[in-house]
Amino acid sequence: MSADAFVPTPRSKVKRRPMYASYDRDSVYRLLDAGLVCHIAYVIDGQPFVTPTAYWRSADRIFWHGSAASRMLRSQAGGIPVCLTVTHVDALVVARSAFHHSINYRSVMAFGRAAAITDAAAKEAALHALIERLYPGRWPSLRPVLAQELAATMVMSMRIEEAAAKARSGAREDDAGDYAWPLWAGVLPLATRVGRVEPDARLMPGVPLPPEVARYAVGGRLDAILSDLARENPAAR
Amino acid sequence: MSADAFVPTPRSKVKRRPMYASYDRDSVYRLLDAGLVCHIAYVIDGQPFVTPTAYWRSADRIFWHGSAASRMLRSQAGGIPVCLTVTHVDALVVARSAFHHSINYRSVMAFGRAAAITDAAAKEAALHALIERLYPGRWPSLRPVLAQELAATMVMSMRIEEAAAKARSGAREDDAGDYAWPLWAGVLPLATRVGRVEPDARLMPGVPLPPEVARYAVGGRLDAILSDLARENPAAR
Repeated sequence: MSADAFVPTPRSKVKRRPMYASYDRDSVYRLLDAGLVCHIAYVIDGQPFVTPTAYWRSADRIFWHGSAASRMLRSQAGGIPVCLTVTHVDALVVARSAFHHSINYRSVMAFGRAAAITDAAAKEAALHALIERLYPGRWPSLRPVLAQELAATMVMSMRIEEAAAKARSGAREDDAGDYAWPLWAGVLPLATRVGRVEPDARLMPGVPLPPEVARYAVGGRLDAILSDLARENPAAR
Repeated sequence: MSADAFVPTPRSKVKRRPMYASYDRDSVYRLLDAGLVCHIAYVIDGQPFVTPTAYWRSADRIFWHGSAASRMLRSQAGGIPVCLTVTHVDALVVARSAFHHSINYRSVMAFGRAAAITDAAAKEAALHALIERLYPGRWPSLRPVLAQELAATMVMSMRIEEAAAKARSGAREDDAGDYAWPLWAGVLPLATRVGRVEPDARLMPGVPLPPEVARYAVGGRLDAILSDLARENPAAR
């Protein structure tokens, strides 16, 4: 484990298939930067909830946002512990026995305490980072943010206290004796891909498709596009 | 709300954007059947965790499985409350203001208590259902399940006590005054799609690609394939 790694406690230490696990910051950040939606777990009165939401990262902080009226965000604002997971599903693994069927995936589980960003300027800076993460260069061309929009938006942030990345790739290792079993086995790759853009019905005449949207080329892998954007984005370092 | 709906309590009642919510069993089951991996939240000593895992459904029960050594499964086996969420990310919605950028999605949040299936025959029947959900007709062709494989596998099940489906689709409604803003807006569709199959390097000579694998045609949408398979599968009703 390098010096530049998260230090696992029993909370984040991967026990099952530890050979798939990694705690170094680069691995964790790379998987976070390749994702769009995370799942955040939190507890209200002993009851667990898990909510999907868009997120973004800057250094060792993860951000998410929503309506100021959101139950999730209001309950998180008090600094409660959360677990934030990002998952990339990469393939179905088809084996010769039921037991060895599997799924190839890459995931990160990150732990920390959520806190609301209350300062209006810091909030706007965080939203700027979200837009620039997904659509670099778009912010200055947008209709400017209104004070009431900022007031209606809650922005949360969490310093990653600890995190583990886990990944499974490649073909299945069938049991040695099973290779003689006369059945097809292999891998069915899966990826989230971009479809054809659908321009809004009420575009102003002559408005061009901007470069930040054209980056999402038809057929492109979303994780690859987001990874490229993150590499080009100094704010995420 | 139809008689065939889950009855929401404060736990599952959607407060934000209630117009996107639905509690009827058909909507909930359809979204579950279109997914492959869920995120399950659970609490150990006050700390929330959220773990991605494959799942399957039969009537009002959801199943998942893993190693008998798994911390997640062992902690859940005692009947603790869990929240299970399935999310389909359908599009990036690009608007004329920062505030109105969005993501189109479909999700289900289901609540219940996890329980381990301990009877060996019931466990094997559940694993059969998982294989048949993803690869109909494959089970009889597999190398049969061994007793030690069954013993090493933990299968969990949860009756859905309550559940809410939530979906956002279509274009963004920009503010009325923003349509005159001369900037491109629209929708960038996203979907998880199947890639080209990669046959195992050690296939027996002459072994054909079986129909249950061929169902995953290159370029096909995973959610559509899984939905079709569920409609053809009487076990899921």
